[in-house]
Amino acid sequence: MMNNLVLADTTELDFSAWALSKQTRLEQMLDLALVPADLAPKTLHSAMRYSALGGGKRVRALLCYAVAELCGTDLNVADAAACAVELIHAYSLVHDDMPCMDDDDLRRGKPSCHKQYDDASALLVGDALQSLAFDVLSKPKLLNDASLQLSMLQILAQAAGSKGMAGGQAIDLAAVGKPLTQAELESMHHLKTGALIQAAVLLGAISGSHKQIAAVSSFATNIGLAFQVVDDILDVEADSSTLGKTAGKDANSNKPTYVTILGLDLAKQHAQHLYANAIAALAPFGDNAQRLSALAAFITQRNF
Amino acid sequence: MMNNLVLADTTELDFSAWALSKQTRLEQMLDLALVPADLAPKTLHSAMRYSALGGGKRVRALLCYAVAELCGTDLNVADAAACAVELIHAYSLVHDDMPCMDDDDLRRGKPSCHKQYDDASALLVGDALQSLAFDVLSKPKLLNDASLQLSMLQILAQAAGSKGMAGGQAIDLAAVGKPLTQAELESMHHLKTGALIQAAVLLGAISGSHKQIAAVSSFATNIGLAFQVVDDILDVEADSSTLGKTAGKDANSNKPTYVTILGLDLAKQHAQHLYANAIAALAPFGDNAQRLSALAAFITQRNF
Repeated sequence: MMNNLVLADTTELDFSAWALSKQTRLEQMLDLALVPADLAPKTLHSAMRYSALGGGKRVRALLCYAVAELCGTDLNVADAAACAVELIHAYSLVHDDMPCMDDDDLRRGKPSCHKQYDDASALLVGDALQSLAFDVLSKPKLLNDASLQLSMLQILAQAAGSKGMAGGQAIDLAAVGKPLTQAELESMHHLKTGALIQAAVLLGAISGSHKQIAAVSSFATNIGLAFQVVDDILDVEADSSTLGKTAGKDANSNKPTYVTILGLDLAKQHAQHLYANAIAALAPFGDNAQRLSALAAFITQRNF
Repeated sequence: MMNNLVLADTTELDFSAWALSKQTRLEQMLDLALVPADLAPKTLHSAMRYSALGGGKRVRALLCYAVAELCGTDLNVADAAACAVELIHAYSLVHDDMPCMDDDDLRRGKPSCHKQYDDASALLVGDALQSLAFDVLSKPKLLNDASLQLSMLQILAQAAGSKGMAGGQAIDLAAVGKPLTQAELESMHHLKTGALIQAAVLLGAISGSHKQIAAVSSFATNIGLAFQVVDDILDVEADSSTLGKTAGKDANSNKPTYVTILGLDLAKQHAQHLYANAIAALAPFGDNAQRLSALAAFITQRNF
């Protein structure tokens, strides 16, 4: 089941309808990209669908779609990009939740993959979801300019790899129980969540001008960090049923967070500061960036 | 340390020198593709290098190089393809060896990744090696024809995914303790090891004609299965120090193998039959296929 967006007062109603339509569209794209559950190996295909479909805020996909609208990227290109990024994100959640990593039983309001299936299946589900992301993005003639499509694949591969998301995970693991400075924490999150959010935005902007790409890239850096700061705040302030994942997890597992380093009030100020920076980065687009601004507001004001 | 090829009498000395030169070349390519171990996150990068460098027969890379020579594919394209395929293979070994999968402590003559490091690191190493494979293959201007390069990425993504290698692993897991027919076993191996061997050959043949690609594809199907039959025979006949991995593992873990289904003698006959089919598939190339024939002989006559 898809979470409905809970909107802050400042956000236009129009944004809510747009976001819902894009979430629905993304769901259809994922449904088409994933192998039907009745094709062998059935357990693997069913577990892949269980893990990738029907859940999450789809923030990365929404960013990709909003930036694509802003930069004039074809909708079918944005579809493939959003789909590929969400497949990478879904794989990372499946592996993250495994007992040897965060050992989390709850994800997107339902049992995590290794609880619903088993550890070996979860391992293979994550592996195969990653492959599928690159499969989706290497579809023939997605763009007229094949070399531009190749660069999309490289952006995604590097965002997912050891100098991106997987590297951030490794730093995160090594940091448990250790004091980090705010700079070290920020550097970890630039990789762990920032790299894939940056990729979602850069893929959406693939048809944009250099100036447009520079602007949305700066937007992505700030909104990516803001997303993580808000995540840390919600880990403390929200309950598990609202989050759809285990609340208080980071604090209980002795992980450094923005809240443990800055305290709750300063963390909230920091999120607002990053949000303001993100909005400022959109100045070159003028009024055209309203959708993306509304999305930034949603990301920083969400309560789940 | 690299295993030296142990050659059967029928194999030319020339082949041995060629194979060694290509193994050395592949090692250099992997060394360049992998992030240096002194770059953060250091443990992840060091564990990736530990798992991908300095070991294995590199059969997939050798197949890729030999087919590239036969089909006129540029050496730098073959380099990237061989590298990408071996990175996917290395990632699959790291994840395979984990406790929730085959739980194997020994790989390529040294402790497997999760024994040398830990389970969480092994999970991330496999994940990041897979990303790196797609990074390597999406390098700008690898081929003049970018759309052909895109098709290489799709071949690899599909070979690695749920309808390829990961799917084969899932079938393998589900088959433990169950009686399989020879046809079911063959279907499982077509995915588990066959898909990536097929990809290695198709990527090497990327510049070939339709006729050439059809011929090497048929060759790959047969030699891929032969490789697996020989693997099953060696699991029974060889010792761990020769194999560099735990001998008798499949038999002890109650997995169906060619030996358990056919018996040792018929399994050996079957390997010879598949070898003969593979050689027959090379007929269109005439004498030009000597290198690939020698490699097929090595694959079926190896003792490790």
